[in-house]
Amino acid sequence: MPDTLASTLARITPVNRALAATAQAHLDDLTKPRGSLGRLEELALRLFLIQESAPLAASPAAIFTCAGDHGVAAEGVSLFPQEVTRQMVLNFLGGGAAINALARLAGADLTVVDAGCAGGPFPEHPRLVQGKIAPGTANLAQGPAMTQAQCLAALALGAGLADKAHAGGYRVLGTGDMGIANTTPSTALYCAYLGLAPEPLTGPGTGLDQAGMSHKAKVIRRALELHAATVASGGPLAILAALGGFEIACLAGLILGAAANRMAVLVDGFISTAAYVAAWKLCPAVADYAFLSHASAEPGHAAVTRVLGLTPLLDLGLRLGEGTGAALALGTLQAAAAIYNDMATFSQAGVSTSDT
Amino acid sequence: MPDTLASTLARITPVNRALAATAQAHLDDLTKPRGSLGRLEELALRLFLIQESAPLAASPAAIFTCAGDHGVAAEGVSLFPQEVTRQMVLNFLGGGAAINALARLAGADLTVVDAGCAGGPFPEHPRLVQGKIAPGTANLAQGPAMTQAQCLAALALGAGLADKAHAGGYRVLGTGDMGIANTTPSTALYCAYLGLAPEPLTGPGTGLDQAGMSHKAKVIRRALELHAATVASGGPLAILAALGGFEIACLAGLILGAAANRMAVLVDGFISTAAYVAAWKLCPAVADYAFLSHASAEPGHAAVTRVLGLTPLLDLGLRLGEGTGAALALGTLQAAAAIYNDMATFSQAGVSTSDT
Repeated sequence: MPDTLASTLARITPVNRALAATAQAHLDDLTKPRGSLGRLEELALRLFLIQESAPLAASPAAIFTCAGDHGVAAEGVSLFPQEVTRQMVLNFLGGGAAINALARLAGADLTVVDAGCAGGPFPEHPRLVQGKIAPGTANLAQGPAMTQAQCLAALALGAGLADKAHAGGYRVLGTGDMGIANTTPSTALYCAYLGLAPEPLTGPGTGLDQAGMSHKAKVIRRALELHAATVASGGPLAILAALGGFEIACLAGLILGAAANRMAVLVDGFISTAAYVAAWKLCPAVADYAFLSHASAEPGHAAVTRVLGLTPLLDLGLRLGEGTGAALALGTLQAAAAIYNDMATFSQAGVSTSDT
Repeated sequence: MPDTLASTLARITPVNRALAATAQAHLDDLTKPRGSLGRLEELALRLFLIQESAPLAASPAAIFTCAGDHGVAAEGVSLFPQEVTRQMVLNFLGGGAAINALARLAGADLTVVDAGCAGGPFPEHPRLVQGKIAPGTANLAQGPAMTQAQCLAALALGAGLADKAHAGGYRVLGTGDMGIANTTPSTALYCAYLGLAPEPLTGPGTGLDQAGMSHKAKVIRRALELHAATVASGGPLAILAALGGFEIACLAGLILGAAANRMAVLVDGFISTAAYVAAWKLCPAVADYAFLSHASAEPGHAAVTRVLGLTPLLDLGLRLGEGTGAALALGTLQAAAAIYNDMATFSQAGVSTSDT
């Protein structure tokens, strides 16, 4: 199992920044004032560095909504009961969730992954990957959420999904999550990886009140104290095993796998960004392949993206997860590819350049 | 001609806010924590108030890119020569501009409108409306940009386009502009309508340096002094005629016409928002039908939207116009309609609600 992670990591290389001049020259030759398409130009340039050739491809795209349950739910850190994870997986398979509507609109194929939901296996479904590592993690406030072997298996599950998507012709991946209580492990991971305090990062999740958030922050602080030696060691894998979750580790593996296959990956919101941070700690070069889709309304996300030095593409006040932000940001990535691929140059269109 | 404007204004009524409870109840019954889709929910609710029935329709959509030239270009307020307006109209018709790529991606039909470009008529083209009021406005720094009759004709042109689009089955409109030097009249309109000073609002447009911006601000201040009596009178039509432009008045008419036909209208960036402010001054109820698509990178736009109390949907650093922001925001509006129309309710999906 460790060999799987090591071989994925070994396949990831930073993009070749020497190619940026080629992409920039093309962007500057398109019929518009220089830089006037703002972040679309930035996205197009990054996509060119990933793909190394034009036309840029922002499709076909696959979104993976990875689900898992969390032992820490027993601490009363979420407003919704744990069975909602399972119910929502069935809703994803039935096509009735927000991610179904938004993935369809964006033209992305949706795959639902049981990375570790409580209970037995789900009925077979063409859109479902049966990847259950275990029926929910252990309670991270009382011990490690996952064993190292479980964590590696979840990472390998995600990386394998990326490999398979690449083999199937997909060019862009999107991440999504479902897991009652999973803002708690995500917040704990941010604290452990980035050296942040839990209280200012802890938010309402699906709708906790002030007392609920205060309790949740205490649970996270307790967990960080329990795992202080692991956190202090700074080992990204050990931290992920101690404080993460099956769907989070699976998403970290998916992000690593995207980079290993030179695919752009749209990272959804609060939970997916925690998976991104884990992947980035395991292999900093994933930064070249990952795009933060949107600023989550979960308050800690802004602090995290500031620390990371990244500005998410969209800010629509979403706090749902599932991959909804990734599905929306896919449209922005498609727009970036479209302007790069389809616009005329000044000379082609017979348009005068500026007086400077 | 005044009759045309009056009859358009007479058809505009505020939305019926009593219906908001119906839409909100539906949104709260969808399988997601309450409010967790953020601005998508706000958009869906507003769209329901406009359309008064479900399913919500965010298509078919038509984007109108309205072009005009500006006498004030003679003051040296733009980096690009005036002939670029004409060249870019031909580029729009040839399909090579950014708005072509982005409208196509969004599934919107693009119509190009010659509202008052310099020079003679363009060759006929199926995508072109020959609406030239005059070959460019007069220099607003030396006198009124338009006569009242010209301004009314441009408003009627835009309102007529909305009527025709509505008759043709379109449900959503988008605005776009092309006109070398048109950040100058737009800035002057903001100052006149909103009581703002020109210096902090004046930006680089297509790329002026500090000296160029300083000169441009002086030209705008001079124009505001020249038209001080008109500005002081507060008459929205007189201000638009004195300081506006053919494409700006046409876009104001388009926005009024959208509201008159109970259509949502996506307002593009810096220039289109100036047209929106003119329309809003003529008829405050247009606010119920208009959506600010994106925060322009043109620095004055942030100050204007703050004064208006509106937060644009997207912030991608665009400063191109043409309707590019409207085309991108159309995807967001489509997403709002999709979640409202296509998501399952808690009872349909058998998902438990929160513990509260």
